[in-house]
Amino acid sequence: MPGNQFGEVFQLTTFGESHGNSIGGIIDGCPAGIILDVERIQKELDRRKPGQSNIVTQRKESDIVHFQSGIFEGKTTGTPIGFQIMNQDQKSKDYSHIKDVYRPSHADFTYQKKYQTRDYRGGGRSSARETASRVVAGALAKQFLGQIQIAAYTKSIGQLALAKPYQELDLSKVDAFTTRCPDEKMHHQMVNYIKKIRKKGDTVGGVVRCVIQNVPMGLGEPVFNKLHAQLGKAMLSINAVKGFQYGSGFAGTQMNGSEHNDLFNTDESTKTNYSGGIQGGISNGMDIYFDVAFKPVATLLRQQDTINITGKEVEMQGKGRHDPCVVPRAVAIVEAMAALVMADFVLLNRLSRK
Amino acid sequence: MPGNQFGEVFQLTTFGESHGNSIGGIIDGCPAGIILDVERIQKELDRRKPGQSNIVTQRKESDIVHFQSGIFEGKTTGTPIGFQIMNQDQKSKDYSHIKDVYRPSHADFTYQKKYQTRDYRGGGRSSARETASRVVAGALAKQFLGQIQIAAYTKSIGQLALAKPYQELDLSKVDAFTTRCPDEKMHHQMVNYIKKIRKKGDTVGGVVRCVIQNVPMGLGEPVFNKLHAQLGKAMLSINAVKGFQYGSGFAGTQMNGSEHNDLFNTDESTKTNYSGGIQGGISNGMDIYFDVAFKPVATLLRQQDTINITGKEVEMQGKGRHDPCVVPRAVAIVEAMAALVMADFVLLNRLSRK
Amino acid sequence: MPGNQFGEVFQLTTFGESHGNSIGGIIDGCPAGIILDVERIQKELDRRKPGQSNIVTQRKESDIVHFQSGIFEGKTTGTPIGFQIMNQDQKSKDYSHIKDVYRPSHADFTYQKKYQTRDYRGGGRSSARETASRVVAGALAKQFLGQIQIAAYTKSIGQLALAKPYQELDLSKVDAFTTRCPDEKMHHQMVNYIKKIRKKGDTVGGVVRCVIQNVPMGLGEPVFNKLHAQLGKAMLSINAVKGFQYGSGFAGTQMNGSEHNDLFNTDESTKTNYSGGIQGGISNGMDIYFDVAFKPVATLLRQQDTINITGKEVEMQGKGRHDPCVVPRAVAIVEAMAALVMADFVLLNRLSRK
Amino acid sequence: MPGNQFGEVFQLTTFGESHGNSIGGIIDGCPAGIILDVERIQKELDRRKPGQSNIVTQRKESDIVHFQSGIFEGKTTGTPIGFQIMNQDQKSKDYSHIKDVYRPSHADFTYQKKYQTRDYRGGGRSSARETASRVVAGALAKQFLGQIQIAAYTKSIGQLALAKPYQELDLSKVDAFTTRCPDEKMHHQMVNYIKKIRKKGDTVGGVVRCVIQNVPMGLGEPVFNKLHAQLGKAMLSINAVKGFQYGSGFAGTQMNGSEHNDLFNTDESTKTNYSGGIQGGISNGMDIYFDVAFKPVATLLRQQDTINITGKEVEMQGKGRHDPCVVPRAVAIVEAMAALVMADFVLLNRLSRK
Repeated sequence: MPGNQFGEVFQLTTFGESHGNSIGGIIDGCPAGIILDVERIQKELDRRKPGQSNIVTQRKESDIVHFQSGIFEGKTTGTPIGFQIMNQDQKSKDYSHIKDVYRPSHADFTYQKKYQTRDYRGGGRSSARETASRVVAGALAKQFLGQIQIAAYTKSIGQLALAKPYQELDLSKVDAFTTRCPDEKMHHQMVNYIKKIRKKGDTVGGVVRCVIQNVPMGLGEPVFNKLHAQLGKAMLSINAVKGFQYGSGFAGTQMNGSEHNDLFNTDESTKTNYSGGIQGGISNGMDIYFDVAFKPVATLLRQQDTINITGKEVEMQGKGRHDPCVVPRAVAIVEAMAALVMADFVLLNRLSRK
Repeated sequence: MPGNQFGEVFQLTTFGESHGNSIGGIIDGCPAGIILDVERIQKELDRRKPGQSNIVTQRKESDIVHFQSGIFEGKTTGTPIGFQIMNQDQKSKDYSHIKDVYRPSHADFTYQKKYQTRDYRGGGRSSARETASRVVAGALAKQFLGQIQIAAYTKSIGQLALAKPYQELDLSKVDAFTTRCPDEKMHHQMVNYIKKIRKKGDTVGGVVRCVIQNVPMGLGEPVFNKLHAQLGKAMLSINAVKGFQYGSGFAGTQMNGSEHNDLFNTDESTKTNYSGGIQGGISNGMDIYFDVAFKPVATLLRQQDTINITGKEVEMQGKGRHDPCVVPRAVAIVEAMAALVMADFVLLNRLSRK
Repeated sequence: MPGNQFGEVFQLTTFGESHGNSIGGIIDGCPAGIILDVERIQKELDRRKPGQSNIVTQRKESDIVHFQSGIFEGKTTGTPIGFQIMNQDQKSKDYSHIKDVYRPSHADFTYQKKYQTRDYRGGGRSSARETASRVVAGALAKQFLGQIQIAAYTKSIGQLALAKPYQELDLSKVDAFTTRCPDEKMHHQMVNYIKKIRKKGDTVGGVVRCVIQNVPMGLGEPVFNKLHAQLGKAMLSINAVKGFQYGSGFAGTQMNGSEHNDLFNTDESTKTNYSGGIQGGISNGMDIYFDVAFKPVATLLRQQDTINITGKEVEMQGKGRHDPCVVPRAVAIVEAMAALVMADFVLLNRLSRK
Repeated sequence: MPGNQFGEVFQLTTFGESHGNSIGGIIDGCPAGIILDVERIQKELDRRKPGQSNIVTQRKESDIVHFQSGIFEGKTTGTPIGFQIMNQDQKSKDYSHIKDVYRPSHADFTYQKKYQTRDYRGGGRSSARETASRVVAGALAKQFLGQIQIAAYTKSIGQLALAKPYQELDLSKVDAFTTRCPDEKMHHQMVNYIKKIRKKGDTVGGVVRCVIQNVPMGLGEPVFNKLHAQLGKAMLSINAVKGFQYGSGFAGTQMNGSEHNDLFNTDESTKTNYSGGIQGGISNGMDIYFDVAFKPVATLLRQQDTINITGKEVEMQGKGRHDPCVVPRAVAIVEAMAALVMADFVLLNRLSRK
């Protein structure tokens, strides 16, 4: 029940602050007998890491995952899988400039109010660095999921939005683009836009779309743990997310039922898929697709007015190397959280019937 | 962990199918000593019930809540609060026309696939009738919450959207309008539109906005149980919901950080509130506001093609009295789920500090 | 997490006070497709009910279970099973004599201190009446368990203890004895003893032994949710229980390892069974057996000194019809709780392997 | 819900096998603002470690705890506390002699049956090495608990049992005795007995008594999460435990109600304490005391017959340095688990009242 745990039976608990010794987690409930490709897990982690391209932060973090338990002779054993990612030594750094300052639209203020204390170094626990642990667990969940395919991509950056439906994109090529927008033309527009924004010391948001394919029917637990409700919670728990929609989403509210209803084919597939692969909270075997809205990064490389811990007005300026747009790196996090949700429901569905 | 439970410490478990003996639930974790106004709970339930106006379903259900336990001499005792709402006698009815038919965009098909059996009468467990139990629990949660004010209203029906910000509306007047859109002019347009749609046997969706005020700072449990993540899950668990956004939401993805950041006033409030009252998953004391997208009702009062349980094409037509638009009644459900989330976090926050 | 719920995936939540409208519960997570024999459930409930023989309380409670949901056409549907047992009308009764009095070794005092309020009528929530709901759920769990046999019996009453091992008893005959001690001679001694104690207005405790047979290997979830740890918790949660031991139990502490170790036969059974069918928290296929210690009933039909809510000394005397010994009726409760634990672990074990 | 987690709101999740890289855990839900004495935590861990005296195993393990997160400037921050204890390098060792063999009364067989695979080195996850993580978390919980005093001691080894009630012992002197039996005379008898047993390559069990003092009234959550039910589960989850009793325990079953009832003094204390400080599952402010039964260690330093993974009879002999009796070291584990339970209920009790 404390907040650092996700999942019901395939369960991830994470720990770690941005500038502590290490971050990491425990995956409990992963079934025994899964042959793990640890290199593929590391590769997923590399998709999230800073410094991977010229449009993301140039911070250098090696982010190597070290498994501690639960894997033996290349297979999961059914016991909890502990893992750890060391933080680089930050001890010498000077944080006095942010120690007593509340950065606008960050969690400095709310952590201070909630806990009356906080690790202010690099945002502490509220730093998106925590999501590296999610990517590790999600990558492992993907290997459990086998056939179920999860692919996310950048759908929009600021006002630059890809109009093409996902069916017309080659989702296997997402990583060939530093923006993770798998459309040559849109990719270049986005790159230019991000560079322009960064030059001004500003930032921008965007939308990640995620598509899940080859989903068995029957996943999702009514009535409160509907498949899309858990997906929504999973996505909204990612730093900087402001919204979630699946299937027809907000646009669907403007449709009439006679257009929106997905009529059946005789093979039990549907002619349209406004439902987004989920009806009554349970998968129907069609593609699941959803959108995740990311706000612009709050850390600006320009001067901002703010207040400090005593309520006095102060000026501050973001230092160091920050992302002008988190969306390209967030693609890996969205996939990871989707994988955790799917793994959980695949297992829970084993309990549905006598 | 099974799916019929919501909340961590203020916890609702519900039971009941549309046409069984009764529906109801157990509220566990409600603190002792709350003086309950049971009539106010019944009034909230009346806001959701069918037949309340000429733009909703004309089905007659009395929906009286009967408390069984946990309340003594007008106060909660700290023990679980069992409650029940009797179903009207439906036994004589003939359901043979839907017994073997999968209604399009309903949960008939997915329940059948998941459980290999289902109570097909009136949608069984997947019926929105289940949400009556949520309204009871939410109404009780509101009484626990005291000062924290939760008000939802109809923001759009189909393409008819209220452009005014919530600050310009009188949220205490929402129930004066059958649409629950507290704007005279827009209300009338919506009424006319719903009537037109109903005449065609069609349905329409819409958006509910919910505003939570007088929120103490510090509510929300990072990192997975962020306040908005739980709100999102709560809303997405309501029947027919396709999306959730809070604060700047999807529109925020198109903004730059320099516009989007909420700068502080020296009294610790913020000059803008794109954050929607939540930063890093924790309330900052500003208003919380969010939108919930409802798809058009799937039951049409016109003929539709579909398939039956053997995969054969059949024609079907919705019978009886159904809502052309659930949004006006959904307002009560959105508020109830919001109240459950807030009650949970108010309690959890008591555990934050030594 | 509030305390009125038991089980991880086969989950019972109960509500109800001794003298409220009704008691009951919700069973969530029961798989779909179980053909239910509702009469057999009622029969289990009758094994627990007051007035069943001349050595238990002569209180008349009909205790009929009414299912509300989750069962359709004789089968479970996978949705939550709500049920209810009406309380007899007690409203006219006079409780002024216990309203402000703390009965010795009851929960009156501790509920008052914890909640600052309580339903004092008949012990309210702390009454063992609540266990009727457990028996309903346990009886249902037994039907899910199928082959796994659970049989409990009275092993001792006061100092009268059955020395014979369970293997020498006919456990199918337990209900033929009002003491539920399936040994003719010991049964008669116990009956006489209970009658003698009752005549003095006194009460006595005893031990229930429970045996679980035909258990598949592999049940139990290390490390904290060991099979015997959950069994222990289940038993200790029953009113009046003071101790739990399984396998060799407390006597095993006096043995040497060379005697205590259960050596294997080549068919993977063991030559002895000091382990009580569980090794490392996981079932090994041998019989599981354990003992549950019940203290003497706290309500005496004689005068006792006590204090009232203001700390003043008062005299009180138990009124009405109470059990001189709960052990014969407790047998049904022990079995029910064992069934809930086993059902939970049978389901959880489906998640162990890829 | 997977089994490697303990506690509802003060929650410990552990990972790690005996011979993996490290063992450790995450403490989630520890309130912010606790000033931690890390050295005292290490000292508790030293009480459990091998090689601490001449009557326990002479294995050398340094067992140093390394905190990773959740502590900043000497105080808890409210974020999860990750910690790690490195395993000594065991990689070179030869385990071929136990790889395919099921040691009698160990978990080798049951893990193999449950997971179809296992880390056989040193017992893997089923090794009592895992309890080191519990001691770390428990030691931290003790610092949160402040005034509440938890003291355990060795009550019996084999048939050597201390008859004196705990009130006549100096519980602050427990660690002055290598047996942790704080009675000079009995201590010496026990030492001699253990040495004799060890010489034969045999082992012996015993009982640990634990006493909790200065307990506030109101701890414990009826009806399933009674204080003693959670204590029981906690203790039964410790390796080698076969039984649990509190207050009058099994002996209480032989008493009459008129002797057993704890009559009140006018200051709300009770004249006797057969209840063991708990009534109706809730603490009443009197001392809590309970007994934990440990079976003799299963690993013998002598030859035993057993079977291997193919069902063939083989001979085996325990190698290396093992405990002839775990009870002296188990004292620290019992206290740790008791502290975790108490911390959980202290926090949960904050939710009881409006």
